[in-house]
Amino acid sequence: MGRVKEFVREEALRSAMKTFWSKGYEGTSIPDLMQNMGISRSSLYETFGDKQSLLNEAAKYYSRLVGEKRRSILANAKTVKQGLTDYFRYHMEVALEENWPGGCLITNLSIYHDYLDDETKKLIEESMETLEEAFYHFLEKGKENGELTSALDSRKTARLLLTINHGINVVTRVKGDSCHLEDISESILHLLT
Amino acid sequence: MGRVKEFVREEALRSAMKTFWSKGYEGTSIPDLMQNMGISRSSLYETFGDKQSLLNEAAKYYSRLVGEKRRSILANAKTVKQGLTDYFRYHMEVALEENWPGGCLITNLSIYHDYLDDETKKLIEESMETLEEAFYHFLEKGKENGELTSALDSRKTARLLLTINHGINVVTRVKGDSCHLEDISESILHLLT
Repeated sequence: MGRVKEFVREEALRSAMKTFWSKGYEGTSIPDLMQNMGISRSSLYETFGDKQSLLNEAAKYYSRLVGEKRRSILANAKTVKQGLTDYFRYHMEVALEENWPGGCLITNLSIYHDYLDDETKKLIEESMETLEEAFYHFLEKGKENGELTSALDSRKTARLLLTINHGINVVTRVKGDSCHLEDISESILHLLT
Repeated sequence: MGRVKEFVREEALRSAMKTFWSKGYEGTSIPDLMQNMGISRSSLYETFGDKQSLLNEAAKYYSRLVGEKRRSILANAKTVKQGLTDYFRYHMEVALEENWPGGCLITNLSIYHDYLDDETKKLIEESMETLEEAFYHFLEKGKENGELTSALDSRKTARLLLTINHGINVVTRVKGDSCHLEDISESILHLLT
């Protein structure tokens, strides 16, 4: 595929991602996708397959775009405090970025999980597991460095951080207030360190 | 209205609540509601008004059914530990109750907040504020009793607990694992007390 064609394909995929993110799988129609992606019905099916295949590709694209950066912040953090502050700052930037639909595609899809096919379900489960693991290793490193008490249960705390991560994506939809979210971030740090 | 008629009306409203809870506002059609409520289109409009009015009444019904019990657990708790354990246990029971759609109606509606009318938006905002206040007073009482350190910022921690509350409703949709959720509850207690 030529570079121009690849670029056009990625732009269309990005628009599909934003549409599913904003309206959910059930709430998104083929005409919604055609309009937002700026392509015809036949191009859509020819390039991306059906609505379900497009959702899966969009969710993978989202994971690369947002998920990898998040995990790299945790993996490369010099201290627990710096890592958590940077992580939640970036998380809130994505959740509140005005050119994006708000919150998180994975959180939104999780809510109506029952209506998704097995491939998307697996993708969401893996996304949660990968993030939990990233938090777990981040906390373990903090314990090794002596920044966190050795009594801290890294597994349970990683699950709590995963829960907070998704909770932020719900609360921002309603409150949309970054100040409030900084409170949450400070609060986590205060309790952990 | 007679008792029987009142009972039938409440049963229909409960079915509407479950439908919106399961499929969201956009994802729920009038035929879905007619089928689940077991009433005709004309009865639906005559008794509950349009889809939007029905959603508002269903959300208020949900708030009375689930929200009041939650707040009363916090208000009547003898200790912080007992209060938080009972609160999150009940919360998870609701989120995982097999006769219910899973998670929480308010969390689900929050995700697609932009598509709701002003009355529903206000209802959701009030629901979050009321719960934050309940957590705040609960934590303040814990500080007065000496169970929590006076250095704890009750406002920020109440916001964190609100976030965890909604995060649980996302994570349960995917993991559906009460054991995992007990970890979360234990983790909060461990960090706070």
